Amino acid sequence: MSVTAPLGFRAAGIAAGIKKRQGPPDPANDSRDLALVVNDGPSRAAAGVFTQNRVKAAPVLWSAQVVAGGQVRAVVLNSGGANACTGPAGFQDTHATAEKVAEVLRDSAGEIVVCSTGLIGERLPMDPLLEGIDTAAAQLSRDGGVAAADAIRTTDTVSKISFRRGEGGYMVGGMAKGAGMLAPALATMLSVLTTDADLTAAELDQVLRRAVSVTFDRLDADGCMSTNDTVLLLASAASGVRPDLAEFERKVTEVCADLCRQLLVDAEGASKAIAIEVVGAASIEDAVDVGRTVARSNLLKCALHGEDPNWGRVLSAVGTTDAEFEPDRLNVAINGIWICRGGAAGDDRSKVDLRPRDVTIIVDLSAGPHSATIHTTDLTAAYVHENSAYSS
Amino acid sequence: MSVTAPLGFRAAGIAAGIKKRQGPPDPANDSRDLALVVNDGPSRAAAGVFTQNRVKAAPVLWSAQVVAGGQVRAVVLNSGGANACTGPAGFQDTHATAEKVAEVLRDSAGEIVVCSTGLIGERLPMDPLLEGIDTAAAQLSRDGGVAAADAIRTTDTVSKISFRRGEGGYMVGGMAKGAGMLAPALATMLSVLTTDADLTAAELDQVLRRAVSVTFDRLDADGCMSTNDTVLLLASAASGVRPDLAEFERKVTEVCADLCRQLLVDAEGASKAIAIEVVGAASIEDAVDVGRTVARSNLLKCALHGEDPNWGRVLSAVGTTDAEFEPDRLNVAINGIWICRGGAAGDDRSKVDLRPRDVTIIVDLSAGPHSATIHTTDLTAAYVHENSAYSS
Repeated sequence: MSVTAPLGFRAAGIAAGIKKRQGPPDPANDSRDLALVVNDGPSRAAAGVFTQNRVKAAPVLWSAQVVAGGQVRAVVLNSGGANACTGPAGFQDTHATAEKVAEVLRDSAGEIVVCSTGLIGERLPMDPLLEGIDTAAAQLSRDGGVAAADAIRTTDTVSKISFRRGEGGYMVGGMAKGAGMLAPALATMLSVLTTDADLTAAELDQVLRRAVSVTFDRLDADGCMSTNDTVLLLASAASGVRPDLAEFERKVTEVCADLCRQLLVDAEGASKAIAIEVVGAASIEDAVDVGRTVARSNLLKCALHGEDPNWGRVLSAVGTTDAEFEPDRLNVAINGIWICRGGAAGDDRSKVDLRPRDVTIIVDLSAGPHSATIHTTDLTAAYVHENSAYSS
Repeated sequence: MSVTAPLGFRAAGIAAGIKKRQGPPDPANDSRDLALVVNDGPSRAAAGVFTQNRVKAAPVLWSAQVVAGGQVRAVVLNSGGANACTGPAGFQDTHATAEKVAEVLRDSAGEIVVCSTGLIGERLPMDPLLEGIDTAAAQLSRDGGVAAADAIRTTDTVSKISFRRGEGGYMVGGMAKGAGMLAPALATMLSVLTTDADLTAAELDQVLRRAVSVTFDRLDADGCMSTNDTVLLLASAASGVRPDLAEFERKVTEVCADLCRQLLVDAEGASKAIAIEVVGAASIEDAVDVGRTVARSNLLKCALHGEDPNWGRVLSAVGTTDAEFEPDRLNVAINGIWICRGGAAGDDRSKVDLRPRDVTIIVDLSAGPHSATIHTTDLTAAYVHENSAYSS
C-alpha cells in the first residue's frame, strides 16, 4: 500500500541501471533503483524536513527550495548514488532530473522534489537516470507504492511501508529506506509520507515537524548524520476529509513510528533493537541528550551485543552530558532489573536476561518529570564488516 | 626507567590478587595489579588533571582533593577494579587505601594519591589490596619503575614507559596505561609523570595542563570518556636543577606524546593508527572540534579498516560541527592524495595507498590559520569482540 494507500497518488519503481550490480542479478528486486511518486491532487500541499548536516547533498539543496513553496507535484528518488559533494555539476544533475520529471508530467520543475541515496562524492549516471524517468512515468499506477518502496532500498534487506486510516476515512501512507542516522553506510534516510486528507502546507509542516521530532529524530544507530536525509509529507485532499489536526498528527506519528521500527530491525549488522528510556529528566531536551549520548556509546553497544548488562558504561556516558542530575541519584534498569540504584550497584546483574532481541534500558535521572526514548542498535562485527567493504 | 628515571623516586609493582585471573596464569606478568610510586623529595610539589566526566570514580574524587594541596608523597595505583559507581562505601575504600600507604610510609594520608582501573560498579577486594601495600612498600626501589608500569596494565598488551633528559641534567619520566578515551573497556587512562627538576606546584600545574591539552586530550578512539582518567606530575627537586619553564614544558610534552603514541598503537582491536590533521581552521577550538568529530565517525573508522579512502564520510562528519567553513571550500587528503578538492571529488581515489598501519587524513577547512591533530584508531571486529566479552 505504501505511498499509494491514500487516494490521489500514483507511483512506480523501476530498474534504470543506476545501481552498480553487486552479487548475482535478481531483476525482480535488486536492480530497481528509481522511484516516482506523483500527487494528482486536487491539492498539492506539501511539507518536508531535511538533514541538519551543513554538508548537504545537491538534491537536498534543491528540494528544500521546492518544499519552501508549499506545493509538490511529484517526488523522484534514486538509489545507487547520493549526489552529495558533487559541486555545481551535481546540482545541475539534480536540476536536470527535476526538469525531466516536469517534462513527462507536463508540469513545473519548481514543484518536483528530488531525493538521492548511495555513495557520497560520485556523479550520477545521468543518461540511464533520465531514460528511467520515462520508463517510470509510463508505469505510474495506483498499485505502484510497493515497487517504489523497493526501488529506494540500498543495503535495506526489506522494503519499509506503512499506512493508517484516519477518522472520516482519510488515509496516511508512507515508505522509508534505512540509512541516515540508522545505518548510514549509504548516507541517507529517506521517507515519503502521503495523505488524501485536506490540509494546508502550513498544517502539514507543523504536523510533520512534531511527528519527526519524536520518531525519526529519536532513532540513532551510530551518531553519523547523513548529507541527504529527507522526510516528505504530501497531501492530495482527494478524500475530501478535513481532519482534526491533533488526530491527524497521531496518525502521521503512528506511520512514522512504524517505519522507524522497521528501519531499526533492519539496521546493518544489528542483532539487538535497543530502547533507551530516559525518565526523571528536568526537561525533554535533557532526556533526549542523555538518551542520545547513551545510544552513541560504542562500549555500551558492544556490551549489549555480548549480552553483558554493563550499567557502568551507561553511567559513564550519562556523566559526559550537561543534563541536570546528581551522580548518586542515578538509577538504571536493564530489561526490568534495577541493576543500578543511587549511582551504585543495585539488584543482582545475573537476573538480567539479555537474550531477547529487544532490549530496554531505563535511565532515571531523578531530576524532574520529563522523559524521552531513543532507539538504537548494538555494535557488531557484522556492522564493521558491512561498513568496511562498501565503496571499494 | 619509567617513573624512576628521575632522582628522588622509588617504585614497585606487585601481584596483590586484585585482578581476576583470565587465561593461563603467568606469575611474572599477568598477576601484577598494584603499583606504588613514592617521592622521597626533597620537594613534593605536584599537579594533576582528572576526567571531566561528571560521574567520577571514588579515587578521582579523593585524589583531586589531595592534588589541590599541591603536595604529593606517593601514588598507589591498582588494576582489577575502577572503584567507580561504588557509592560512599567505595569512597571509604579509597580513603582506607590512602591511610594504609600513609601508615607504611609514616606520612600523611592527605598527600597520598589513589588511582584505580578496571570494571565500573564493583567494590575492590580490600583485604588483598591492603596486604599488597605492605608487599609493595617492602619492594620499593630505584629500579621499580618498570614493574610499576606493568602492574597498572589491564588489556594493555605492553607496558608504556618513557623518559627524557632536560637541559642541565634533570630528568622527566613517565608511565601510562591505555584505556580512557583510547580503549576504554576498562574505564581508565592513567599516567604518572615524574621529574627531579625543582618546580613549584603552580608551575607544574601550568605545564601539565598545557602538555595534556595537546597530547592526551587529542587522543580519541571511541569518544567514550572514562570515570577514572588521571594524569599526575610529581617533582622531587632531587637534581637541584631549576629548568627554564618553556624547555621543561617541551620535555614533558615529549614524554606525554611518546606515551600517547604507545597507547595508540596498543589500542584494543585497532589495526590502524590514524592522525586527523585539521588545517585552515578559524581557531584552535574549531580545529580540535572538527578533528574529534571526524575521529568519532564509526563509518569512517570502518572504511579505513577496510582500506577504503571514503572521503565522503569525512565531509559528512565535518558537516555536523559548528566550525567555521564553507562546504564548497573543503579539501581532504588521505595519505598524501588530495582526494577531495572544493567539497567535491579531487584526485583519483585509486592513488590512495591505505595498506600502511599509519594513516594521515588532512582536513583543510580553508577558514583560517589554525590547526590541530587528533589521533584515533580504526573500528574493527576485534574491538567489538574485546568489548563484548569483558565483564561477563
